[in-house]
Amino acid sequence: MYQAVTQFSKMLRNLDNWIVKAEAHAKTKNFDPETLVQARLAPDMYPLVKQVQSACDSAKFSAAYMTGKEAPSHADTETTLEQIHARIHAVLAHLETYTEKDFEGWADRKVSPKWLAGKWMRGDVYLFQAGIPNFYFHVTTAYDILRHNGVDVGKMDFMGNVPTQG
Amino acid sequence: MYQAVTQFSKMLRNLDNWIVKAEAHAKTKNFDPETLVQARLAPDMYPLVKQVQSACDSAKFSAAYMTGKEAPSHADTETTLEQIHARIHAVLAHLETYTEKDFEGWADRKVSPKWLAGKWMRGDVYLFQAGIPNFYFHVTTAYDILRHNGVDVGKMDFMGNVPTQG
Repeated sequence: MYQAVTQFSKMLRNLDNWIVKAEAHAKTKNFDPETLVQARLAPDMYPLVKQVQSACDSAKFSAAYMTGKEAPSHADTETTLEQIHARIHAVLAHLETYTEKDFEGWADRKVSPKWLAGKWMRGDVYLFQAGIPNFYFHVTTAYDILRHNGVDVGKMDFMGNVPTQG
Repeated sequence: MYQAVTQFSKMLRNLDNWIVKAEAHAKTKNFDPETLVQARLAPDMYPLVKQVQSACDSAKFSAAYMTGKEAPSHADTETTLEQIHARIHAVLAHLETYTEKDFEGWADRKVSPKWLAGKWMRGDVYLFQAGIPNFYFHVTTAYDILRHNGVDVGKMDFMGNVPTQG
């Protein structure tokens, strides 16, 4: 399931690009781009910064749980767009350290994140029912926050390049 | 990759439940729930009804492309929440017709949707880089539209029950 992780990386690079576009949008409209760091869709939803942190965590923990490796710790102290970019880049660099071989036996691996309090699930159940939906929840909501604030991103920016043949 | 499709079904059932909660919320707040059908996060984003239609299509086409089966046609004529529920239920019933055996060889299958204009991609490239991200884009944005409108759904409603052991 190495390709699930390369896809997380691709989406994190896309996310990084949406924020670059958001900064350009703020410049054009002459507003402070840093206001977007705390932008949210509802008062009881996470703001952009926390959506990005959560997407980053979901990607790194999915990779760690499917391989039995240790995920690096990040303190969630980002308060600026520059720091948000740096967080994404740090997780991307970490995900680069994985190889296809690391994922051997991923589906049958016992995954036991802290929030399961001692219980566990199979690697494939974790990936499809927790890792992937959680990752896309946060990355899509980050996108939706930017779109709701008028940033000129579209569906192709969301998806990124999908390689075709023929 | 049968479990990718059972997961689409699970998320569509979750989506159906969020709309039930939206109807209850409208009743409590004494507004017409049908106003949510056309609710959107930005003037140039799809409204709720189109997000649901797109999520349904993404699930049914992913299943069809990975198995070489034909997806049923739906005319996108829904204008009410009742019709939106019916669309979700129709796609759920269709997804029920698939078995694990249908997905044999899915990763190597040539997938050539109309929008690729004759080009193609491998089944695994399609699923991870197009099917899954597109599905979660629409289902998450539907959720975000409801949350933005004050509907009392939370992350557990998004994820649904994740089966654990131990």
